[in-house]
This record gives sequence, C-alpha cells and structure tokens, in this order.
Amino acid sequence: MAANHLRFSKVIDALPATVPFVAPEALERQSGKPIELRLGANESPFGISPKAMEAIRAEAAMGNFYGDPESLELRTALAAKHGISLNQMAVGSGIDEILGWITRAFLDPGDTVVTSLGGYPTFNYHVTSFGGKLHFVPYTAEWKNDLAGLSQAARETHARLVYLANPDNPTGTFYSAQAVMEFIESLPKDAVLILDEAYIEFADQSEVLPLSPVMDRVIRLRTFSKAYGMAGLRIGYAISGPEIIAVFDKFRNHFGVNRVAQAGALAALEDTEFLEMVVEQTRVGRADLAMAAERHGHFAIPSSTNFLLTHVGSDARSSQMVDELLVRGVFIRKPGILPLSECIRITIGTPTQHAKLLRALDEVW
Amino acid sequence: MAANHLRFSKVIDALPATVPFVAPEALERQSGKPIELRLGANESPFGISPKAMEAIRAEAAMGNFYGDPESLELRTALAAKHGISLNQMAVGSGIDEILGWITRAFLDPGDTVVTSLGGYPTFNYHVTSFGGKLHFVPYTAEWKNDLAGLSQAARETHARLVYLANPDNPTGTFYSAQAVMEFIESLPKDAVLILDEAYIEFADQSEVLPLSPVMDRVIRLRTFSKAYGMAGLRIGYAISGPEIIAVFDKFRNHFGVNRVAQAGALAALEDTEFLEMVVEQTRVGRADLAMAAERHGHFAIPSSTNFLLTHVGSDARSSQMVDELLVRGVFIRKPGILPLSECIRITIGTPTQHAKLLRALDEVW
Repeated sequence: MAANHLRFSKVIDALPATVPFVAPEALERQSGKPIELRLGANESPFGISPKAMEAIRAEAAMGNFYGDPESLELRTALAAKHGISLNQMAVGSGIDEILGWITRAFLDPGDTVVTSLGGYPTFNYHVTSFGGKLHFVPYTAEWKNDLAGLSQAARETHARLVYLANPDNPTGTFYSAQAVMEFIESLPKDAVLILDEAYIEFADQSEVLPLSPVMDRVIRLRTFSKAYGMAGLRIGYAISGPEIIAVFDKFRNHFGVNRVAQAGALAALEDTEFLEMVVEQTRVGRADLAMAAERHGHFAIPSSTNFLLTHVGSDARSSQMVDELLVRGVFIRKPGILPLSECIRITIGTPTQHAKLLRALDEVW
Repeated sequence: MAANHLRFSKVIDALPATVPFVAPEALERQSGKPIELRLGANESPFGISPKAMEAIRAEAAMGNFYGDPESLELRTALAAKHGISLNQMAVGSGIDEILGWITRAFLDPGDTVVTSLGGYPTFNYHVTSFGGKLHFVPYTAEWKNDLAGLSQAARETHARLVYLANPDNPTGTFYSAQAVMEFIESLPKDAVLILDEAYIEFADQSEVLPLSPVMDRVIRLRTFSKAYGMAGLRIGYAISGPEIIAVFDKFRNHFGVNRVAQAGALAALEDTEFLEMVVEQTRVGRADLAMAAERHGHFAIPSSTNFLLTHVGSDARSSQMVDELLVRGVFIRKPGILPLSECIRITIGTPTQHAKLLRALDEVW
C-alpha cells in the first residue's frame, strides 16, 4: 500500500478484508447448480401482499422522482398503527442500514458493545467497522439469550450499546413482555439497548412488549423484510425517543429509501389479512418441520419466527447437511459459532416447498 | 443531554442538527399548494425507459428475496459496456451512498477535503459528518470549477480527497477529456480524486475522458438517477482501481441495493434508443430555455447537463423568483452560496412542461 500512497482512514484500514456475506447467488455460481428451494435467508416464501405488489408496480411509474426523504406518509401510518409520535420513528433501507446508523451514532473507536455469542453477524460487522469492541455472552443451555448475563456484562464492560434480537436470530427463541421489561430495567443507565424485532410478527402478539410508551434508552427495530415479504425492496424502521431519532438526521443518507419500497410498505400495512395468512401458514409449517426433525431424532428449538433451528449433533454434521442439501438444490444456513454451529437453520416454506424439502432432508439426516 | 445520560460518538455529537435537505414534498406541505412542475432536483421528466419499467415491474414479483449483494449481473453488463474489469467497479444505492463510503474510507477526523465553493452539498454533508475539514475553492469568473485553484489547494492543504463534478452541479459547466487529464496529473500523488459524473450522459460524448484505463487514484461516479430517469429506484456505481473498490466491501451495507433497481438498471442499459431520446430532448429543451432567459436579459450559463443555471442579478432576486414560482406550482432551486446564489437552477422539462414553465417565468422575471 505504501508503494502507491493509498492511505485509508485508521478504522477502515484496520478492518479485515474478508466479506462475511455469501449470498445464495454466490453459492449458485460456485456450485454451478441452481437453487430450487431458497430457505436460508429467512425470506418469506409467501411473497408480497397482492395489494402491496399493486402499489409497488404503480409507484414504479414515479420512479424518476426521488422518494420523500422524510417518508412522511409511511411514518404517519406507522405512528398511527403503533400509537406513537412522528418524532419517535425513523425509516431506513432495512434494519441493516439502521444498525449502521446506531453504531455510528454511539460508538467511538474502542467503545464496548455487548451481544450474544453467535448472534446476528451483520450487527457485529457494523460494530467492528466503526471500531467498536464486541463483548460476547454465550446463550443459555436452553438456546436463549442470557438476559442476566447480558445485563451483567453491560455493567462490567461499561457498554455503550447492548443488542438483543427478540424473537432471536438464529435460535428463534422469544422472551415475553415482562422478561424484556425486567431486562431493560436491569441495564446500566448509560447503555442503550437495541431491541431487534425483525421477526416480531411471528411471535405470540399477546406476549409482545408494547411499543408505547417509547423508552428513551431503547431502540426498537422493525422491518418489512420478513413477515411482509419485502426483503428485496429494502425498508425498515426504528422507534425510540426523539433525541436518538433526531440524531440519525445529522448523518443519514436522506434520499436513500427508494420510492417503490415506501409505497409498497404503506400498502402492505393495510393488508392485515395477508399478514395473518403468512403468520398462520408459518405457524403450521413450523410445526410440521419440527415434527419431521423429531422423527429423525433431532431437537428443534421452539421458534417464534419464520425459521427453525435444529440441533443435529455436531458442527461437522451440520456443515455436511448444508452442503448435501445444496447439492440437492436446497439452500439453508447454519450458525458459524459453537454451540449454535451444531445446528441447521431452515426458513419455513410453503406446503409445496416443504414436500420437496422433506424428501431432501430424508436423504441427508 | 447529561440529564438522561445519552451520549453520542464524538464526531456525531459535534454535528449540527440542521437538516440541509428540503424535499419538494416538504415544500408542498409547508405551502399547502401542490407542485405541478417538479423541476428543482434534476429528476428526469422523461421517466424511465419502458423496457426498464417492464423489468422493474416483473422483478417486483421476486421482491421477497434480497437482491444479489454483489450485483453481479449488473456489474458484468457495466464492465462490458465500459471495457473494465469487475474488480474495478462497485454498485451502491445511488451516488449519495457511495460518497458516504468514500468519505468514510479515507477520512480520519480533521483530514482535509478540497472542493468548489458552492458545489454539491450532499458531498460536503458526508465529509463533515465523518469529521472531515472542507477547504473551498471559488468558481472562476466563467462559472467553472477552478482546476488550477483546486490542484493548488490540494497541495497546500495536504488534502486526502478532492471533489470535482464534471459536468458540474450546480453550474452545468463541463471540462473536456484533456483538461480533466491534465488536472488529474497536476494533483498531489497522495490525494484521491472523486470525479462525480452524474450528468455525464448529457455531455458531448466525444469530449468525455474514457473510463479505461482505470486510474488507481481516481474514483469515477455514475448514476441511473439522471439520464436514465431512475432517481427513486436508487442505483449508482463507482469505478476505480481494485484496491479502493475492495475497501468498500469491508464496511458497506452488503444487501443494501434493492432488487428491482438492479433489474431496472440492467434493462435500462440495453435501451440505448431511449437514452438517446432523453439526451436529444434535453439538448433541445435546454436551448429553448436558454433563449427564453436571454430574451429577458438574463445570462444562462452554457450547460452540459439536464438543468440550466441562469444569473438573475442578485441573491435576493433569485430567492424571490424561487418563491414566486413555488406559489405558481413550479418547484425549482437556487444555489445557497454567493456568487452562485445570484442564479436560479431549473431542470430541463418536456415541451409541455416548458410551455407552462415559460408562462410562469414570464410573470416572475
């Protein structure tokens, strides 16, 4: 690098060059074999609501205009739905972008962040790439986030940020409102909690911590990528106190949220019937898949999401299963870190997809 | 802030809370009057190519799947078109996102960046929000970027980055290949040049600096937001040496480019006929608008873009015109900094739009 005088910023220069994100498209290119069942990224097999699809296709005709940088129509609808104020919400290009905002807003290089060992890799990626230091807390023996452990670690490390996915990815486990509230109250007062609720629509709604009243030191994250089936459109939102929401406006890419996604999300919100169908079909498919796993003697971790994490015995075994399924045109994933890496993670599919999936699984497990 | 212990990162905490981006939607909400002619953000009035529109609407059916994080199909097509390699190109959600990548990749807090006084505000916004220090060089008396001045300033300030928009925004002026090449050669060897070519399709193509051979210390930026009419879809790309292109992968939001934009851009590239129509209609409309300005005794700066900057005498006068046009349902913009702020900037419209525009202009200038 010295030879041609290219010099990067200190934080960026120190980052590894490895790219942690291998997409199904890349796997297809590597294997030369098309993926028939795409059940590895928790994308919804039920697609986008027909009403949202209509809105997206109509809005494409306005695609020559930038989207509203304030996403006011969508924010107004979301605020009404959740019973919160406009200044308590920010819309971004998916939760991933917003996780980048949060780490950037709070972390100076060297600051500590507490999260679960084996939790969402993209969050860790953002923390590291802003120079943050990750402190990991192992999952409990019941494959749940260790709330007491996370809280204790936050105190001991003087963490700036604490991350909790609820329902959790990759385990699928869920904490009810009371447990989450007790966790929030146990956290040190100078830490900010990121509560990633990407999969919240799949959880028991009577057990979900209400969004209102909004808490100043908690950032709730929601997305249209999972239950709403709009992963490829890129839209998500953050709910927090006005001070945190306002800080994002200081540096975010204001015209970054594309126009068709805004229109699609607005229409998707109104199609509650479609959402209910997705949640119900997911519940049924999840139970079927769990039974199949148990028939083969594997433990399926109870899931409140659109995927199922199943313990298959060892790290080597889960890797082998992922590879053998890929050969059969089935894309699934497995966690990268022990003990979670003894499991495979499968996105819940449609009944037709499950018929194919179970035939493939019968051959490999 | 001390009261509730919310503490942001040093760089972010020091940023102003003012949001520099007022969208036409916000102007409509403020004035309560709908905008009939949206000619302030250099969005294409000719829309999206019908072939691209078809691709976008078809791809929406796949919107439940994340887009390819490598944008391989699109990058392959772009690489073929430009005669460069895949590792010399990165695709992002528009040039604005990529400007954020570049400032982040190169700037430590306090590092200096050289740009023209009154140049692209979004670039300045990104520089400031990563703690960079802006050094401004005034435009020349001919409303052109002062290449000698920029180069000298880069040397004197030990600039990490130099920004040049060519064709320029907001002046519309253009430097031919030879002038740009001489400028590049005059820059200090440890500076990196950002050559923002958002409007390049509107320039005399025989005078455009070829993209190949790629230069290691120059980052060329192109977009589908302007001539291709896809501003609301969000897609742009960077061309540079492999070392710079690779560094973006260390920290960018890998799944951030939405799927329909990727498909739309790919189809748009193939519809050269549509692009030629847009460029030709823009050339004709630009000449008409320049003549109208001159009839009223105002100087229209010769433009190589899809907009026209016209000197109307004073800062107060241009502000008044912007306001009076808005009352008439016409959205245009004006630069914020003297002497450019003595001008109004109007996006070239369709013949129908120009008929309305000229009637409104007749009343106000």
